[in-house]
Amino acid sequence: MKALVYHGPGQKSWDTVADPKPVDPTDIVVQIDTTTICGTDLHILKGDVPTVEPGRILGHEAVGTVVAVGSAVSSLAADDRVLVPAITSCGRCAYCKRAMPSHCQATGGIGWIFGHLVDGTQAEYARVPFAETSVHKVPEDVTDEQVLFLADILPTGYEVGVRNGRVKPGDVVLVVGAGPVGLAAIQTAALSGAARIIAVDAAESRLDHARRFGADETIRAGDDAEARIAVLTDGGLGVDVAIEAVGVPETFDLCTRAVRPGGVVANIGVHGAPTTLHLEDLWIKNVTITTGLVDGTTVPMLLSLVRSGKIKAELLGTHDFGLDDMLAAYDTFAEAGKHNALKVVIRR
Amino acid sequence: MKALVYHGPGQKSWDTVADPKPVDPTDIVVQIDTTTICGTDLHILKGDVPTVEPGRILGHEAVGTVVAVGSAVSSLAADDRVLVPAITSCGRCAYCKRAMPSHCQATGGIGWIFGHLVDGTQAEYARVPFAETSVHKVPEDVTDEQVLFLADILPTGYEVGVRNGRVKPGDVVLVVGAGPVGLAAIQTAALSGAARIIAVDAAESRLDHARRFGADETIRAGDDAEARIAVLTDGGLGVDVAIEAVGVPETFDLCTRAVRPGGVVANIGVHGAPTTLHLEDLWIKNVTITTGLVDGTTVPMLLSLVRSGKIKAELLGTHDFGLDDMLAAYDTFAEAGKHNALKVVIRR
Amino acid sequence: MKALVYHGPGQKSWDTVADPKPVDPTDIVVQIDTTTICGTDLHILKGDVPTVEPGRILGHEAVGTVVAVGSAVSSLAADDRVLVPAITSCGRCAYCKRAMPSHCQATGGIGWIFGHLVDGTQAEYARVPFAETSVHKVPEDVTDEQVLFLADILPTGYEVGVRNGRVKPGDVVLVVGAGPVGLAAIQTAALSGAARIIAVDAAESRLDHARRFGADETIRAGDDAEARIAVLTDGGLGVDVAIEAVGVPETFDLCTRAVRPGGVVANIGVHGAPTTLHLEDLWIKNVTITTGLVDGTTVPMLLSLVRSGKIKAELLGTHDFGLDDMLAAYDTFAEAGKHNALKVVIRR
Amino acid sequence: MKALVYHGPGQKSWDTVADPKPVDPTDIVVQIDTTTICGTDLHILKGDVPTVEPGRILGHEAVGTVVAVGSAVSSLAADDRVLVPAITSCGRCAYCKRAMPSHCQATGGIGWIFGHLVDGTQAEYARVPFAETSVHKVPEDVTDEQVLFLADILPTGYEVGVRNGRVKPGDVVLVVGAGPVGLAAIQTAALSGAARIIAVDAAESRLDHARRFGADETIRAGDDAEARIAVLTDGGLGVDVAIEAVGVPETFDLCTRAVRPGGVVANIGVHGAPTTLHLEDLWIKNVTITTGLVDGTTVPMLLSLVRSGKIKAELLGTHDFGLDDMLAAYDTFAEAGKHNALKVVIRR
Repeated sequence: MKALVYHGPGQKSWDTVADPKPVDPTDIVVQIDTTTICGTDLHILKGDVPTVEPGRILGHEAVGTVVAVGSAVSSLAADDRVLVPAITSCGRCAYCKRAMPSHCQATGGIGWIFGHLVDGTQAEYARVPFAETSVHKVPEDVTDEQVLFLADILPTGYEVGVRNGRVKPGDVVLVVGAGPVGLAAIQTAALSGAARIIAVDAAESRLDHARRFGADETIRAGDDAEARIAVLTDGGLGVDVAIEAVGVPETFDLCTRAVRPGGVVANIGVHGAPTTLHLEDLWIKNVTITTGLVDGTTVPMLLSLVRSGKIKAELLGTHDFGLDDMLAAYDTFAEAGKHNALKVVIRR
Repeated sequence: MKALVYHGPGQKSWDTVADPKPVDPTDIVVQIDTTTICGTDLHILKGDVPTVEPGRILGHEAVGTVVAVGSAVSSLAADDRVLVPAITSCGRCAYCKRAMPSHCQATGGIGWIFGHLVDGTQAEYARVPFAETSVHKVPEDVTDEQVLFLADILPTGYEVGVRNGRVKPGDVVLVVGAGPVGLAAIQTAALSGAARIIAVDAAESRLDHARRFGADETIRAGDDAEARIAVLTDGGLGVDVAIEAVGVPETFDLCTRAVRPGGVVANIGVHGAPTTLHLEDLWIKNVTITTGLVDGTTVPMLLSLVRSGKIKAELLGTHDFGLDDMLAAYDTFAEAGKHNALKVVIRR
Repeated sequence: MKALVYHGPGQKSWDTVADPKPVDPTDIVVQIDTTTICGTDLHILKGDVPTVEPGRILGHEAVGTVVAVGSAVSSLAADDRVLVPAITSCGRCAYCKRAMPSHCQATGGIGWIFGHLVDGTQAEYARVPFAETSVHKVPEDVTDEQVLFLADILPTGYEVGVRNGRVKPGDVVLVVGAGPVGLAAIQTAALSGAARIIAVDAAESRLDHARRFGADETIRAGDDAEARIAVLTDGGLGVDVAIEAVGVPETFDLCTRAVRPGGVVANIGVHGAPTTLHLEDLWIKNVTITTGLVDGTTVPMLLSLVRSGKIKAELLGTHDFGLDDMLAAYDTFAEAGKHNALKVVIRR
Repeated sequence: MKALVYHGPGQKSWDTVADPKPVDPTDIVVQIDTTTICGTDLHILKGDVPTVEPGRILGHEAVGTVVAVGSAVSSLAADDRVLVPAITSCGRCAYCKRAMPSHCQATGGIGWIFGHLVDGTQAEYARVPFAETSVHKVPEDVTDEQVLFLADILPTGYEVGVRNGRVKPGDVVLVVGAGPVGLAAIQTAALSGAARIIAVDAAESRLDHARRFGADETIRAGDDAEARIAVLTDGGLGVDVAIEAVGVPETFDLCTRAVRPGGVVANIGVHGAPTTLHLEDLWIKNVTITTGLVDGTTVPMLLSLVRSGKIKAELLGTHDFGLDDMLAAYDTFAEAGKHNALKVVIRR
């Protein structure tokens, strides 16, 4: 089969490789019908994720069709259409049992294994470990495009941003960063009853997207962003929830300053550097700061909302490619700003 | 001043009575600008609420203007525009401190005192006890009509139905009874992220209202209602939350049968009779049943949502009257079905 | 092997039957080292549970040693010592994923299958389905007696009584019924920080046990029980949490009267008849009523507390028998009052 | 009357000053029967709290007797015995209504006003603003010593450490710092069902206290503390909850390293300097970090536990002084290590 293979920092190619087969009794193999590229894949290609070894097939998001099942698999069968999520869950370890498979102990304490520790989904076929406790059957009445982004980006915005941030009806929510994950947070915060959602980003085109996803107010990042947030929040009291969706110290720090006493800073951003935490101000402020990787445990719930039309995940897909145009898809996604791209949809 | 006075079962009149004045240091007196009539007022007039004594001015919902303040009142002043809510809170007792003023110990264990234990709001003026811990200042950018129903019916639907029922994103919610309080539950369940809201009522006109307030599916009450609910809930598994908004045994029992294992039955209905609880079926079903009277502690949150346009409480007001037409307003509200009325808006 | 076989209402015998073997890839077979008898087994023998068919081996609680594993089992191996809990969890269905395996959809919507829908643990060996998602490895530093009652009775008292009842530090907790499950609720309520635990039972000997398990006050059931509860609860305000651990209408009704406004009635009792629910009083009382079957999801947590000496589950075992004395064990347990027995410990 | 007056950094004296009287209608005046000194008072004396102006009477914890009440006070009267807590609550602002009076808007956004923005409790008498929403009546069956530390230190350990840290039954809890507030956290964590409490401190004498307050394991601060914590936590997985009770970067950082994925770091320490937050490690770790000042909303609950003998707050009082020996009490408390002192009890 063909697959996108990582060959070390800066190097990838669309190679012919061996077809996967079930190895463990709990495995399945799926034909990839639709997949996408994640910002994490770009990090891997920069060499930022040393646990990914050369020769690895990338990708951790897909909708596919079951083509083979391991000997212990009883609830899935050939031709079943499934969502393959970013996080694999063994279903048995302490973390999976407490609905936190992002730390699955069976896969080394990290539930993200596709395109990382095992071969991924940017290929014609993929082997899926612990399939029955990990994948989700896709109902006939939803398209691949509607469900694809439930593999990672939408639950990331919801679980790590909105849910960890404990967004509740009536809240004023700040989302710093209006890239795909920030937009996912905006859409699901709106759904959770936020009274007002304020989006901050450096790019005007992203603020346009933010409004389309449900932001009530948008602010261009810069010197007066904090002053403008203050005007919007009861005379500077601050926001109930500040969601960090960039991953650099400046935006994290902005969130800790913009949150009101008793509020929550929910970090989604992938950080490569430490920041200075101003405990001399924060100790008395009754704030909660959360971090986390997606678990995907809310996928069934999000799928219900997709089916009832209350979440439109397909808005995240701005550009389409065929599987054989994988390298072109990477080019577009790597220069998302230039193409005004959010996520790419790559179809068989 | 003029006021609607209860003179015993079946008897009321629009009388001239003495103007109220502050009695306790924490009192204020407000001029009533806008008020309404509650189903409870009709119950009182039937003689169903014996704690209401003849001579009592009825009414427990109003928007008004402060005209006098007691000696201890420092945060309210003449000309302030305030929402007078159904529930009075002393702010000091154990129940008020745990955000449950419906059981305020300072007012005899029941926070509902207006038009019940003290004179109410269907009058030109009203004395408001424990004012600073009870009333809410009304911002200039909302009209009386937008905020009036936050005095009782909207927080009742939200707190006793949606919040007690723990409605969360993705839930399938059943609301039995599409009168004003059921509609308030429907509107706030939609806001809380319900994936699908099913309304049941005997009157087609009320189901029309239900759709307008956000119901996704409507079912005419009757023999096949349960079968139709089953079709809508994963092959009969049942709903996540069943909200009872009628107040008779049949509808309560329907809720206990329609809820799925692990779900919640939230009772809002005012019941005059016991029901049979089928513990022989329910003990194993992992269900939660809740009851309650509104507390009004969510009024500030609901007001935020009114201001941001995400709640349209004014949809509940279908008919308008002048204060001097109080008796006509009662006639219309008492025959709500005939007039297709929800709530009446009575203005100075 | 030998096993306790149900032969229809009123009939049981200690028979020689075929040894079990793994059937499905996810099965294991365990040698039963220690088991016990549950009140449910007595109900089955009376014919109260028609889903149990003649020929069924009874029992759903055991500590055992793995002797064989199915082809898909990778995290358990021969000689592992395991706790076999009452509830089986497939780990994949919607209910298992939300930590409610009591309604596991893979086993027909009821997670209790041992000694019910498949052969149970009152035998020399037992086949255990969905083993990796159901059983718990037992650390070397705890004895069989310390862990045996975590199979059912202790998590039942904790999950269905204390956790569903939301017992929190400072609460006044009423436990009606001081049999094994009531005692489990008392011990775990004490651990959860209850300020005062009041136990009610008709038998003085059970009230002695209640004090030993942590009750602060004990009341003999009877005419003045309610008056005595009133004296103990701020002049009749009522208890924060009332736990029903008997299973008859009278005790359930007592709980609904004894609970204070804003409190919780947590039903653990297995009810065979409906009761009258006084909604005409309760609708305004802000009460929560919960029901449920144990899930067993708190077993790892309870095991931690056993290991650190903070729970003494072994106090529940009052009488010892060998496996071959199974029928004598049944005789003693069936007349628990006469023998002052709580639970029997049956050892290989 | 006599009072301990702050005269600028490094300067205090036991002065004769004017007796306080009620000023606002909601004030009371209490005779101070028992008071104490807080670490914060020492900070003020060092000049670390510039909002305290010279001439201010210090102290924010007392048990006293009401001697005068303002005109609006109806539920308190002369001779009532009351606990005067560190935090004043107006009962009306948004923060007080959401049970967070630490940010009371009526007192400038900071509920701590005694010995800070108004005169305090280290005196013969004190004026208490917003009395009915702030003080707690003390039942006859508890002594001043049993209840005095509920004014601040015990609820601080509970609310900011144990409650913010979401300590639940079965948890492994780390408390770094075994001074008075750390000991309060240890005692209330034990009450909340922690399976194992690990205390870390640099002083062996404090670790002795830690064991007396309920710590299961004690570790001397130093190079191998982290290694010893790792040994105690499932092979280095980490603790469920890490409570910081010192207030310096090193101990805060230790907590972020020692907490397991999915755990909580609850900061109680008063920090004077920022720290480096290692977001490059923490972003993926699913941790929650909380900060906060005490609210005192759990005082009634803690009082219930004192009355039932389940909390022994009086253990915190190690040294006794008369009110006229205030300066000697300060000397002892300022050199707590030398005297093996925890808190001083200063009696009329």
